Amino acid sequence: YAACSQNVSAAQKVSTIDTSQFMAAPVTDLSDLEKNKEDMKAKMELLIMRIQSEFCKALEGEESSGTKFTVDRWRRHNPSEGGGITCVMQDGETFEKAGVNITVMSAPLSKQLQASMRARGKELPDDKQFTFFAAGISSVIHPRNPHVPTIHFNYRYFEMQDEDGNNKHWWFGGGTDLTPYFLEEDDVRHFHSVLKSSCDRHNPQYYPKYKKWCDDYFFIKFRGERRGVGGIFFDDLEAEKPEDIFGFVQDCAESVVPSYLPLVKKHRQDPVSEAERRWQLLRRGRYVEFNLVYDRGTKFGFATPNARIESILMSLPLHARWEYMHIPEPDSREAKLTEVLKNPKDWV
Amino acid sequence: YAACSQNVSAAQKVSTIDTSQFMAAPVTDLSDLEKNKEDMKAKMELLIMRIQSEFCKALEGEESSGTKFTVDRWRRHNPSEGGGITCVMQDGETFEKAGVNITVMSAPLSKQLQASMRARGKELPDDKQFTFFAAGISSVIHPRNPHVPTIHFNYRYFEMQDEDGNNKHWWFGGGTDLTPYFLEEDDVRHFHSVLKSSCDRHNPQYYPKYKKWCDDYFFIKFRGERRGVGGIFFDDLEAEKPEDIFGFVQDCAESVVPSYLPLVKKHRQDPVSEAERRWQLLRRGRYVEFNLVYDRGTKFGFATPNARIESILMSLPLHARWEYMHIPEPDSREAKLTEVLKNPKDWV
Repeated sequence: YAACSQNVSAAQKVSTIDTSQFMAAPVTDLSDLEKNKEDMKAKMELLIMRIQSEFCKALEGEESSGTKFTVDRWRRHNPSEGGGITCVMQDGETFEKAGVNITVMSAPLSKQLQASMRARGKELPDDKQFTFFAAGISSVIHPRNPHVPTIHFNYRYFEMQDEDGNNKHWWFGGGTDLTPYFLEEDDVRHFHSVLKSSCDRHNPQYYPKYKKWCDDYFFIKFRGERRGVGGIFFDDLEAEKPEDIFGFVQDCAESVVPSYLPLVKKHRQDPVSEAERRWQLLRRGRYVEFNLVYDRGTKFGFATPNARIESILMSLPLHARWEYMHIPEPDSREAKLTEVLKNPKDWV
Repeated sequence: YAACSQNVSAAQKVSTIDTSQFMAAPVTDLSDLEKNKEDMKAKMELLIMRIQSEFCKALEGEESSGTKFTVDRWRRHNPSEGGGITCVMQDGETFEKAGVNITVMSAPLSKQLQASMRARGKELPDDKQFTFFAAGISSVIHPRNPHVPTIHFNYRYFEMQDEDGNNKHWWFGGGTDLTPYFLEEDDVRHFHSVLKSSCDRHNPQYYPKYKKWCDDYFFIKFRGERRGVGGIFFDDLEAEKPEDIFGFVQDCAESVVPSYLPLVKKHRQDPVSEAERRWQLLRRGRYVEFNLVYDRGTKFGFATPNARIESILMSLPLHARWEYMHIPEPDSREAKLTEVLKNPKDWV
């Protein structure tokens, strides 16, 4: 009986983490999450599991076709290095391609990544071997209707330390940004307002700073234009304790659904002309250009040995188009969008 | 009368270069080409002008729709730095997108490019300012029918020297490679045989060496597969005198039409299923991945200040597609192609 009641008590302990709503079991064993639940690594994993599930379910709610996300729970080639959960919905009625991925991994830092981290200002002595931990959620949603914008968001927590447990670093990064095909100023204002509210609850300087960082980051240099109308972006966010920042990151991640879903609901059944569809595909070509040439997350993936490439490139659209010398007609809606991509505006 | 007869004689002199078949007037003034016609810069410009025209006309001959190349003759932002001639055919019956570009430019070498040239082994003292001259032809042809492969070729001549005319370097680079959607072994053998003949006329070691270089170069590392079934690729080709290599480069460039046109003629009217078209678009997605992430010419373009981006990215297909986790059925034709992309074969 003693043994039995111990089992029940262990089960009860585990059940203090409610995983019933997640898309799959967490990457880390539930018992380890339970044991370390005050540790930021566990807190971040549980946050991104919840956000993934809430976002996927909100999107599924917009599919009257009943299309659901497929859920792939995968591990790294070396299973002790962790893995991820990749949820993808393809060829839906509302969403042409939607990907929501979480990764939780812990692996040796390659020399190439170590050098690139150092170039970004991290103190990582060259004679030490580092391991890094990363837990992040990353998502890109490409709707079918050109009047519904594409959204991207990514929130991540990093830890790094040398073999001896010294030279510790940790930081958060993330952001949410919008890529419309046609400029609906009300929509863009709504989107930015929601992000601003999340920022303002933590620090009034966050929104202006991270809005500008976003405009600077999502820049296709060789086109002289941004990928979209921005949002917020930050990286290398540190403080006294990770807990001081976690609340902010959580607030940002929770603002994805209220910032985006109203735009989906509003436009997913808008009438669409062939010319509008073509323009959407051309803009998706630009999306591909940014993601393959500039995106830090994609490059990090390419540089990670044995990375799960399908989870990285799920961000690419189902269709894209490149026309030689496509220049929008002056004063057209296409030209108006392009103008804002070249000269970003303040929206709130 | 003396003045007049001088004029006539000058005109006669100019007419020794026949430009009547070119797609446009050469980038360099005809009088300068005439004056320096023994110089490799002029010889290379005239070669690529002729190759561009011969190739474009051969392709137009396969368009029963009558679709022709549009010809854009452009100059760099600073016109004294040269320019190019970009010929593009879009939405033809046989060719979905075909681009044949020549560039002839002479400009200061940016610090970024100087560093990357140095990394490739060029001796370019850091305290010197260099100018470079480049004349090259570059082409990518995306046919509509998935049974006709995509071809790419590029032949280029570089010169580099410091402000004082010292530290001179020159070299040739180039190659021709084939990207089929379905593996027709006879076609691939024909293609490689023509390239091998061109190589063998100059040096029996060229073909095996440049065939391997091609397989190594057109490698999408994160996919573990090559872009296509290869061909030849070489770079940094030097000798005692540029003339010692020019004949080889000319032979390679002249072999493009006989290596490729028979495949176009053979397959351009093959029946096509929807599944075949879809597979073609997926493979075009991989083409985009290679060109944006790895291609040296594209990166050189991105790193060149004020580069004409439309001439660089004319290589991208009109349509491309990305599906999450698309894996060909075992033993399917798609799987057979993929197998050869992972493990390149000898074809002749």
